[in-house]
Amino acid sequence: MKIKVINPNTSTEMTEGIRISAEKAAEANTEIVCVNPKSGPITIEGSYDEIIASYYLVEEVLRSEKEENYDAYVIACFGDPALYALREITDKPVIGIAEAAISMASFISGRFSIVSVMPKSRLIFEELVHRYGAERKLASLRTPDLSVLDTSDDIKKTQRILIEEAKIAVEEDYAEAILLGCAGMVGFTEEVEKVAKVPVIDSVAAGVKVAEALVTMNLRTSKIYSFEKPGNKKIVGVPEIFRF
Amino acid sequence: MKIKVINPNTSTEMTEGIRISAEKAAEANTEIVCVNPKSGPITIEGSYDEIIASYYLVEEVLRSEKEENYDAYVIACFGDPALYALREITDKPVIGIAEAAISMASFISGRFSIVSVMPKSRLIFEELVHRYGAERKLASLRTPDLSVLDTSDDIKKTQRILIEEAKIAVEEDYAEAILLGCAGMVGFTEEVEKVAKVPVIDSVAAGVKVAEALVTMNLRTSKIYSFEKPGNKKIVGVPEIFRF
Amino acid sequence: MKIKVINPNTSTEMTEGIRISAEKAAEANTEIVCVNPKSGPITIEGSYDEIIASYYLVEEVLRSEKEENYDAYVIACFGDPALYALREITDKPVIGIAEAAISMASFISGRFSIVSVMPKSRLIFEELVHRYGAERKLASLRTPDLSVLDTSDDIKKTQRILIEEAKIAVEEDYAEAILLGCAGMVGFTEEVEKVAKVPVIDSVAAGVKVAEALVTMNLRTSKIYSFEKPGNKKIVGVPEIFRF
Amino acid sequence: MKIKVINPNTSTEMTEGIRISAEKAAEANTEIVCVNPKSGPITIEGSYDEIIASYYLVEEVLRSEKEENYDAYVIACFGDPALYALREITDKPVIGIAEAAISMASFISGRFSIVSVMPKSRLIFEELVHRYGAERKLASLRTPDLSVLDTSDDIKKTQRILIEEAKIAVEEDYAEAILLGCAGMVGFTEEVEKVAKVPVIDSVAAGVKVAEALVTMNLRTSKIYSFEKPGNKKIVGVPEIFRF
Amino acid sequence: MKIKVINPNTSTEMTEGIRISAEKAAEANTEIVCVNPKSGPITIEGSYDEIIASYYLVEEVLRSEKEENYDAYVIACFGDPALYALREITDKPVIGIAEAAISMASFISGRFSIVSVMPKSRLIFEELVHRYGAERKLASLRTPDLSVLDTSDDIKKTQRILIEEAKIAVEEDYAEAILLGCAGMVGFTEEVEKVAKVPVIDSVAAGVKVAEALVTMNLRTSKIYSFEKPGNKKIVGVPEIFRF
Amino acid sequence: MKIKVINPNTSTEMTEGIRISAEKAAEANTEIVCVNPKSGPITIEGSYDEIIASYYLVEEVLRSEKEENYDAYVIACFGDPALYALREITDKPVIGIAEAAISMASFISGRFSIVSVMPKSRLIFEELVHRYGAERKLASLRTPDLSVLDTSDDIKKTQRILIEEAKIAVEEDYAEAILLGCAGMVGFTEEVEKVAKVPVIDSVAAGVKVAEALVTMNLRTSKIYSFEKPGNKKIVGVPEIFRF
Repeated sequence: MKIKVINPNTSTEMTEGIRISAEKAAEANTEIVCVNPKSGPITIEGSYDEIIASYYLVEEVLRSEKEENYDAYVIACFGDPALYALREITDKPVIGIAEAAISMASFISGRFSIVSVMPKSRLIFEELVHRYGAERKLASLRTPDLSVLDTSDDIKKTQRILIEEAKIAVEEDYAEAILLGCAGMVGFTEEVEKVAKVPVIDSVAAGVKVAEALVTMNLRTSKIYSFEKPGNKKIVGVPEIFRF
Repeated sequence: MKIKVINPNTSTEMTEGIRISAEKAAEANTEIVCVNPKSGPITIEGSYDEIIASYYLVEEVLRSEKEENYDAYVIACFGDPALYALREITDKPVIGIAEAAISMASFISGRFSIVSVMPKSRLIFEELVHRYGAERKLASLRTPDLSVLDTSDDIKKTQRILIEEAKIAVEEDYAEAILLGCAGMVGFTEEVEKVAKVPVIDSVAAGVKVAEALVTMNLRTSKIYSFEKPGNKKIVGVPEIFRF
Repeated sequence: MKIKVINPNTSTEMTEGIRISAEKAAEANTEIVCVNPKSGPITIEGSYDEIIASYYLVEEVLRSEKEENYDAYVIACFGDPALYALREITDKPVIGIAEAAISMASFISGRFSIVSVMPKSRLIFEELVHRYGAERKLASLRTPDLSVLDTSDDIKKTQRILIEEAKIAVEEDYAEAILLGCAGMVGFTEEVEKVAKVPVIDSVAAGVKVAEALVTMNLRTSKIYSFEKPGNKKIVGVPEIFRF
Repeated sequence: MKIKVINPNTSTEMTEGIRISAEKAAEANTEIVCVNPKSGPITIEGSYDEIIASYYLVEEVLRSEKEENYDAYVIACFGDPALYALREITDKPVIGIAEAAISMASFISGRFSIVSVMPKSRLIFEELVHRYGAERKLASLRTPDLSVLDTSDDIKKTQRILIEEAKIAVEEDYAEAILLGCAGMVGFTEEVEKVAKVPVIDSVAAGVKVAEALVTMNLRTSKIYSFEKPGNKKIVGVPEIFRF
Repeated sequence: MKIKVINPNTSTEMTEGIRISAEKAAEANTEIVCVNPKSGPITIEGSYDEIIASYYLVEEVLRSEKEENYDAYVIACFGDPALYALREITDKPVIGIAEAAISMASFISGRFSIVSVMPKSRLIFEELVHRYGAERKLASLRTPDLSVLDTSDDIKKTQRILIEEAKIAVEEDYAEAILLGCAGMVGFTEEVEKVAKVPVIDSVAAGVKVAEALVTMNLRTSKIYSFEKPGNKKIVGVPEIFRF
Repeated sequence: MKIKVINPNTSTEMTEGIRISAEKAAEANTEIVCVNPKSGPITIEGSYDEIIASYYLVEEVLRSEKEENYDAYVIACFGDPALYALREITDKPVIGIAEAAISMASFISGRFSIVSVMPKSRLIFEELVHRYGAERKLASLRTPDLSVLDTSDDIKKTQRILIEEAKIAVEEDYAEAILLGCAGMVGFTEEVEKVAKVPVIDSVAAGVKVAEALVTMNLRTSKIYSFEKPGNKKIVGVPEIFRF
């Protein structure tokens, strides 16, 4: 099986970290290809970044659908950008790592916390958690003053803060597992787990495992109603690839 | 005061209908400018269309912010595309017509129904209604087999179906007001109201009135947390206008 | 257009403060008449006060409907007393300032806090917030030890406490806007905003703007189901004005 | 123990039916006194009626508190009017029959339906059901075209319709118990039960039993926060009895 | 009337405390028989204990149904174990003390807190509170480091901690009443109430009163759908008593 | 990896069907052992059956933990019996097939329906769906008059009814995927899918894939709070295996 893991921002450093996680999680006979779009913001830290990144992410998947032959897609950003749009484009499974990580955490804990970046992201996470029906499973949402770039540029500070917040989540918020709410944080999974002493979910790994599961089960995105293929309609002034 | 009303699809016919509604609703001293982006899909009928349209809608507002001088923006598509992103870009009020229409309906009815296009849109509407806290106010969501283009290309059929569905909403679902869930439907408001005998909200008008109210009250989008201005970050391969 | 703004308690001092806010917010061609019933409690600080005040508020509107000619009513108490009853009595828009302020706050912030008087009011506010579908938009409900009369009798203390609570709401509860949950607090809007540095909604102004919007849009309360006119039934021992 | 059961409308015929139910349910050593206010509407069929009736109901309980010596109050109207206000006035248990009936139904069924009068009452019932946390226990809310007076003036029609609706509730809505949502319907309990073949709750009886239970357990309304006694404040133009 | 109160754990000491509470609450003509199964865990402190205890509890009720003649059952453990199963077995009322206590608290307070044992029980309580529709009535859930056995083995420590937690619940969480969330805590009701100065519900007493109320009202568990009698099916390797 | 799949009822025929599904779904290097307890009911069709079956299921896992060496457990009954208790007993992943199927359906559809057996099971399913946060994802719950034994004894009837109900779910309830809500129905997956033309989830397969994913990711049940190991407490009159 071939799975395309797409980091929707343009940080190749982050893409490399994601690739490592994805390959480690994959079955022996799963081929992982990990890429990022050539265009778009270096990080996704809000709805504006998400709109821009989603455009190029959609373009990437459209091209992939035409030219390549993958069995599933994993979108490696904890905001699950463009998820519904991508599920319209193709009937191959498209997995957002937030949805996957939340799902996996639910099987091994009663309540869990999300530790992520800056307060700006709270509304987005709250809406995601709600979309996935996890509002009662959420022990807390912790959004310390960290930017996405800090996860690669200031590793010491990032690790220290993640560990601190995870500990508070466990001790004060009754969290039983931790989700690191940013694809750039996958590299901190083990260190946080060591100190917090509860399971810490690697969301990229979770995305890969869900993708493998769906492909093995021969399950494809339902094409009735919500994720019906986009119609062959007039669309002006956009690259040819966007036309159906 | 100057309000820019943006139809985020590229149907100039629909833009014209929206302009008529907007101007009719505006105060005498409000200048309405009604436009649509030059690029993008002719209609927005799902998440894929929304991603593409949002990109050009964001571009339109970025340009407007640099070159023009509006007091508020009204986004004239019942899916409220890119709403959060636009609220990040500017601190001038940005109003989605779905949010505005739902809000106005709440002041004059106990429960209301949304009558819109095709079942594909259900998930999007359900999430919108939830975002705006209207799930208990919703009598029903009616999504007959209509496309957005039908609203301009087959007016007779559209009118007949909208009236039928509105009547069922009132008689069977206990709706006390009707929202026509598509900017292309503003022209049908009066005809539906005449038969359904309950208030039918013109969502474009609602958007304009809310924009005027906020401007008069001197209220601007809060720039702390959720709608903080996008950072001045690296963003590659995109038009210059997208850089902050 | 003529809007009657009714302060449902009998404090003429508060009525005067409300009048100032209402007139400031109104369009040039809107005539504001601001009154309070002659009978009833000097402040409304609980359900008992609300029952008494509602009776005289209803009487006031019944008389107004018979003898005067207003286009809409604004009920200037943050508990929105008698709202549903008044919507039964007339088909002219009846706006509660809590509903209006919550609605306006939703357009310019991701989450907001209500800062109001004493803990006794919590249950009432929680039920209001729920009725208006704002439970997920509410960052916090802050009810310091203030009485309604403090807002006119001890302005220094009131201002100090409102500012303190608003700051905590922003810094600890992630509020992005503040609602002052008492009509007696409209005079503190600017001072609180200056320190809290987030939008503070003047709820009386919000009520006036929503009323104007509905009148301009020609929207009247739906008279089917919930707000059907009261029947012409036997009613004994009450002033003639209450008979339909 | 002495329990005062108050029918808050002015129909003495209904008061008599309520008295029969209450006495039948009471323990041997419980004295039931069943009254209605001298003033107010003959039936309560909406929020307007409720405001008027609540005023006289509050007056009735205030007088009772001064002059008489009851252990608890039962408010015999399925809309539970003035419940919170009455709980402020006295620390003796005040029981609404809707809350009591919903509570009792929860102990003997998985899901139940409320069969009541006319669609106008839906919003009121939906908010009550929500206040009492029964929204997931509610199989359906059935509001046929019946007025409250029909329950005494057209007994045959009322019985036929109640039976029909109860049967549909059981067979189509999966109701496992029925609540007759109007104090005027207590006389139909047995007939409906005979045909519907599921438990039908006599809400007046439920109110009496809960009142007895609380008195026996020595439980009184908590006077901190929500139901704190009304303050000794200025209140103008109202009968002396309303002053604290 | 005869009510069987069953402590589902095997601590006879706790059974004795429960008996005292039950008898004190019962009407003069109610006979209380208070027992515990001969087999099972000494305390129920989690889902594992609950599975084992439920098996013997079910056996106890099955035997009772065959050999004895009770009018109702009260299950005296705050986790309401096996409640639905027991409601299938018999149509006599089966009351869980958590459901009864939550119900009684709702009639005398706006919000209440549950003070119970150890954090392990949080998930169970949260699901119970949700099942009974009390999530909005819950001021807080306080689970200090106490084991069920502490309630009999270290009375001083237990009392001190319960009082501390109850005070915090009232002062910081706005609780207006307290539920002691463990049948082993009924003996502390008065002491906690004395200090916390809000009503403290004796959950065993609540269970008895609800049982009496239902029996007097002649209400039995509905046998359609949810609590239909178990079928006469093949069941292997289990004691004869379990066969229907 | 070795996964133990346990059918918690005593129908060896059903166990065989489950084994086929499980083996088909498993990776090449996963060893599936599929068993059922020797004691207990032949089917689980309500809470009573569940209590009995859970006792023997717990015993089975306790024995397995002592004597065998599995990496994960899958509980193959759509009611997910004893799930929390089993997660206390061991830190190896324990997967309920309902939770797994609901999770997998969420990745490939906007809304899904559960088609299962008889109305009696509705309450159980509604509570499960709620526990897993899927209440907004559920298009409908269809519970035709089928018993669990019908799935093996009257295959024609079962298949006909499942197909009928699935079609109605898709056409009238807007379901985009179908879950067959009974482990005895896994054999019908393909036939239903063929007619309903939407994905039909094989819940046993889903359980196996989730188990494999968790084992590969090295995730184990969190042992803090909810699923802490049962204490070494006094437990009388039960088989030795139950002691910790």
